[in-house]
Amino acid sequence: MDLFILTIDYAGTFVFAISGALAGMKQQFDAFGVFILGLVTAIGGGTLRDLLIGSTPVSWMQNTTYIYTVLAAVVFTYLFQKHFRRLRRSMFLFDTIGIALYTILGLQKALFFGLSAEICVMLGMVSATFGGVIRDVLSGTVPLIFRKEIYASACLVGGILFLLTDQWLGEVAGMAVAIITVFLIRFFAVRRHWSLSFKR
Amino acid sequence: MDLFILTIDYAGTFVFAISGALAGMKQQFDAFGVFILGLVTAIGGGTLRDLLIGSTPVSWMQNTTYIYTVLAAVVFTYLFQKHFRRLRRSMFLFDTIGIALYTILGLQKALFFGLSAEICVMLGMVSATFGGVIRDVLSGTVPLIFRKEIYASACLVGGILFLLTDQWLGEVAGMAVAIITVFLIRFFAVRRHWSLSFKR
Amino acid sequence: MDLFILTIDYAGTFVFAISGALAGMKQQFDAFGVFILGLVTAIGGGTLRDLLIGSTPVSWMQNTTYIYTVLAAVVFTYLFQKHFRRLRRSMFLFDTIGIALYTILGLQKALFFGLSAEICVMLGMVSATFGGVIRDVLSGTVPLIFRKEIYASACLVGGILFLLTDQWLGEVAGMAVAIITVFLIRFFAVRRHWSLSFKR
Repeated sequence: MDLFILTIDYAGTFVFAISGALAGMKQQFDAFGVFILGLVTAIGGGTLRDLLIGSTPVSWMQNTTYIYTVLAAVVFTYLFQKHFRRLRRSMFLFDTIGIALYTILGLQKALFFGLSAEICVMLGMVSATFGGVIRDVLSGTVPLIFRKEIYASACLVGGILFLLTDQWLGEVAGMAVAIITVFLIRFFAVRRHWSLSFKR
Repeated sequence: MDLFILTIDYAGTFVFAISGALAGMKQQFDAFGVFILGLVTAIGGGTLRDLLIGSTPVSWMQNTTYIYTVLAAVVFTYLFQKHFRRLRRSMFLFDTIGIALYTILGLQKALFFGLSAEICVMLGMVSATFGGVIRDVLSGTVPLIFRKEIYASACLVGGILFLLTDQWLGEVAGMAVAIITVFLIRFFAVRRHWSLSFKR
Repeated sequence: MDLFILTIDYAGTFVFAISGALAGMKQQFDAFGVFILGLVTAIGGGTLRDLLIGSTPVSWMQNTTYIYTVLAAVVFTYLFQKHFRRLRRSMFLFDTIGIALYTILGLQKALFFGLSAEICVMLGMVSATFGGVIRDVLSGTVPLIFRKEIYASACLVGGILFLLTDQWLGEVAGMAVAIITVFLIRFFAVRRHWSLSFKR
């Protein structure tokens, strides 16, 4: 089980870093800028969570595997930049499992710090999605997750379901339920163009 | 007295969240984005203060009333979006009393952490106004308080006056002096188009 | 030696604050905005480093000299705004020595918190350059250091060289090596238009 979590954690870091590196290349950043944008996308959400709950030094600083994973992702993006269209499906898959898992890991860390259920669900969502918010702010665009697609909302739903099922069915089943739910929500959201329009 | 502070605190949170929600709606954010923008506007300044002085978990996470107040404000904004022109005056009033009070509460928290008077006044101002800075950055606009109106400066003046009068006249009188001063500065600043132009 | 460090520290703060104040004036900020932009440019990088490692209250809050240095820099910028073209060379000199020194001071602080070499080098670079990133985000422009000039990369190289030479040659020699290296890299980068292009 721990191996499963670790694998997804690094795979998620890799995929998130690619999304940051691609955004940096689109903005004509230089190699340093592309690396930093990959890094903040991959670790920004967890960093914000750690700062808000006061868990410092923030977690990615305590294990160099994260920055080397980001470095590998940036090199990978550079080498295969012309093939990303074909990789779309695998990236969607890893990204979705990634945000679901990060939501749960973030939520569990917040629970450990004795915070209320509502705040823990929010911190789970923040861990999973605010790396992308920082990526967008640093590349001069309005954060995507505030605009379209049901992305962060899927994390909130997944987090709530995990909290509800975790104690009854155990951690593994709770994770499975949450990950599958996040996946299904995102899958249908993209397929059927669901959105949370706020107009009357 | 504590009841007065609590009332203003939640009323201020409500009004700040409305200002964030309105900014989000203007940017065509979806329901999630509008909520997040309301939230960061309401709690962003205090969060930054808490992070800088190292008071974690940050304060709004320790009391769920804040997020429910923000949620209520977002729903309120949605329902009454067409009537906000008429509500302008009440909003100006609550916003002004809000920033004055947040300045003092932030300043007092910083004093409690043993920081110097200058830093405490700055942290008071940060508590009161940097939620709006984060709102503007996240919605892709250059922060309003750096540009026009005497807004943050009124907080600095109010904070200094509170520090000066607090010890002589007591906390309640100090608060009254500071709140009235901030109100008068903002009132005349808006009326007479005062500004802190930086051209020679 | 300590006097040398202190002198550079305040001179660096002064020069960084000028760069922020100039950016604020370019954006038509008012006096308050210009001051805040000078402040975040001067202290933003060290603040981010302190937050990430959990050293709070952040360092500039524990010594009011920093905010008065920033205030002096803002007034200086206001008075001499028409003469900055002629001051370019001195500013380049102080800025370069400044980022080299900040890299080393940041790196040493991170080492003191028991972090790995890679992370310490990164935190050194963050201390030296992320004030400029925050300046750019707050003034609505995409961060310059992600785009052109070998700026942050010079800090990374300087940091690595300091780590390598520090233990063999002693702290003073290590600093000298790092500062001279950063200076030479930046000097030739500007002269010969070096860049870290990321296109294939």
